[in-house]
Amino acid sequence: MSEYTVRDAAGPSVGIVTKKHYTFAEKPDDALVLESGTRLGPVTVAYETYGELSPGKDNAVLVLHALSGDCHAAGYYSKNDTKPGWWETMIGPGKGIDTDRYFVISSSILGSCGGTTGPCSTNPTTGKPYGLDFPVVTVGDMVEVQKRLLDHLGVERLLAVVGGSLGGMQALEWSLRFPDRVNGVIALATTMRHSALAIAFNEIARQAIMADPNWNKGHYYDGDKPATGLAVARMIGHVTYLSDEALRRKFGRRLQEKEDFSFQFDDIDFQVESYLRHQGSKFVQRFDANSFLYVTKAADYFDLERRAEGDSAVKIFARAQASFLVVSFTSDWLYPTYQSRELVRALKKNNRDVSFCEIKADCGHDAFLIPNQRLSRLITNFLEKVRYVKP
Amino acid sequence: MSEYTVRDAAGPSVGIVTKKHYTFAEKPDDALVLESGTRLGPVTVAYETYGELSPGKDNAVLVLHALSGDCHAAGYYSKNDTKPGWWETMIGPGKGIDTDRYFVISSSILGSCGGTTGPCSTNPTTGKPYGLDFPVVTVGDMVEVQKRLLDHLGVERLLAVVGGSLGGMQALEWSLRFPDRVNGVIALATTMRHSALAIAFNEIARQAIMADPNWNKGHYYDGDKPATGLAVARMIGHVTYLSDEALRRKFGRRLQEKEDFSFQFDDIDFQVESYLRHQGSKFVQRFDANSFLYVTKAADYFDLERRAEGDSAVKIFARAQASFLVVSFTSDWLYPTYQSRELVRALKKNNRDVSFCEIKADCGHDAFLIPNQRLSRLITNFLEKVRYVKP
Repeated sequence: MSEYTVRDAAGPSVGIVTKKHYTFAEKPDDALVLESGTRLGPVTVAYETYGELSPGKDNAVLVLHALSGDCHAAGYYSKNDTKPGWWETMIGPGKGIDTDRYFVISSSILGSCGGTTGPCSTNPTTGKPYGLDFPVVTVGDMVEVQKRLLDHLGVERLLAVVGGSLGGMQALEWSLRFPDRVNGVIALATTMRHSALAIAFNEIARQAIMADPNWNKGHYYDGDKPATGLAVARMIGHVTYLSDEALRRKFGRRLQEKEDFSFQFDDIDFQVESYLRHQGSKFVQRFDANSFLYVTKAADYFDLERRAEGDSAVKIFARAQASFLVVSFTSDWLYPTYQSRELVRALKKNNRDVSFCEIKADCGHDAFLIPNQRLSRLITNFLEKVRYVKP
Repeated sequence: MSEYTVRDAAGPSVGIVTKKHYTFAEKPDDALVLESGTRLGPVTVAYETYGELSPGKDNAVLVLHALSGDCHAAGYYSKNDTKPGWWETMIGPGKGIDTDRYFVISSSILGSCGGTTGPCSTNPTTGKPYGLDFPVVTVGDMVEVQKRLLDHLGVERLLAVVGGSLGGMQALEWSLRFPDRVNGVIALATTMRHSALAIAFNEIARQAIMADPNWNKGHYYDGDKPATGLAVARMIGHVTYLSDEALRRKFGRRLQEKEDFSFQFDDIDFQVESYLRHQGSKFVQRFDANSFLYVTKAADYFDLERRAEGDSAVKIFARAQASFLVVSFTSDWLYPTYQSRELVRALKKNNRDVSFCEIKADCGHDAFLIPNQRLSRLITNFLEKVRYVKP
């Protein structure tokens, strides 16, 4: 543990961390060739690391964030920083992903706005933000960028990749794109192929953004941002991360600081309305509307069956070599358990070593982000197991 | 059957029908007092009737429409009209609600845009459309207007009220507001109290409308309409009426007239995206954005427990006298079966005669609108049963 380790109420922490950057594909000949065939460069990747890389370089765990996350997965940016990284409860000394034992790498995904190149980055051709001139990227492209970062860090082989939701898709992609570089794959609350329901909600969210006149076909970086459209998009997403049960428990039909209905539209009646508006307005302060379009599109395109060329579930994981831990949550209706079971079946058909657990949780899709002892133990044990797998 | 009866591919029909209007509360002293305490007048109610009222006036069935419906529940407006009323498959000669036996009344709800007074009606004070000056109305207010129509039609007692979704809420309200005027209540795919999840989706839809600059705080009747906002609102609603299974079966991940992804945002990739955009743009041609605000608000306010004064489920249906038929659908996640079971429990605690059926259907909340032999039979048998109940 570093001398900066903060031991706050949430338990031990990795303490003060720094966001770093690595840039590659700086020469046109060197450009990253995307799945669409488009060439992209230069590419900057923002990342953080926690813990120490072992002398044998065999203790690296790559953490993969979900749709609205970024590379800041654990720790604090300063002594006065009160908001830790998004998976602070899982990553740290003695935690589920124990930074006393593992070297944790976390990077921001391509196409988003967490410091890695995306639509709000400067387009070298114009000197202005890309906007919609940024190419559409895929989960595979995100993983390609992560692989370049690992090359840069001198990490040849990962002990494990771990992610939930869109992060879980990246984890699965890792097992196929670079099968000889990963011992273990932890896929939480995710799917092998984005369902029509999930595409539907993403499409509506994109329509909400594009309906905002400030969106201006993606050119808004020197003017007013499409804040209302992005807020609606976030609210749609946010509801899909929760569950009927969680909303009933948290809010029910409780009124917001009033005894009776307002009988008005410029007032807020229910606590759940207030909560959603708050989520929407908080999000627009930290997230780029174009990035929302790009990352949801990448999720919608994700389909391992399509990728397998020959549409047979048997062949999907033919190339995979890793061991797998698949976890679903009972109240997740965005990526329901039956989708994890499909994944497990496909893995078993390819004779992969796979552990599966459905965790009882009433908080919906977001359950993978919420402290859960059972999830922590599953991850700890899985990392222990794959530690001794030799290439 | 009238001489105009059309017997088309969909089976026997009530044939050509006419939308009628009845206006009341024309004098200030006569105004309708709403639940909010606001006085409203004049009030026009648009309605249609099918079949003949019996000499004993004991065969009237009131049909109650859902959020986006109107009084046109069955039949055609002309010989060349190809689009029948919204419940054509249920209402007609020999159908589930047999117009050879019953006198069916269907009216447009207060606050909507189906010809009954609502925010797009002329405000007598200004001579312009009400817009947001229209008072917020409740399900109880809608039922009050229906009762005035029945008085006008000389129907003292209803054989039954029948509705799904928001229509089911009206049916339940009827059993409490006018307990001595209804023999049977048929409540389909509905709830006693709008859940936090349902409120959440309605609130996001309202936010989408209000985010459209053309909405202009409800004053858009002499300019461009908030079509993009309303389209997003409709798409949100529409997804909640479907199910994961139905979307998978109907669309899956099939691409829209292409072999590969477009890697663009101004193109449509998936059929489900095309379908949703179509639903959105079709809806804005027939529905008023302000009405969408009003009817969703009425649904959100609906809560029989709150209405019961004393928050005990035992007391909710203490005043009810009718027999009940409650039907839910397995894949309805907007008003899931557990909510119908709560309703049934509350009815039983009040010693009400209640039949309950959960119908297996994979098409989600919309199942109640889709032809279903089992549903037709249940309704036919229930109407037969309550026919012989004497006041």
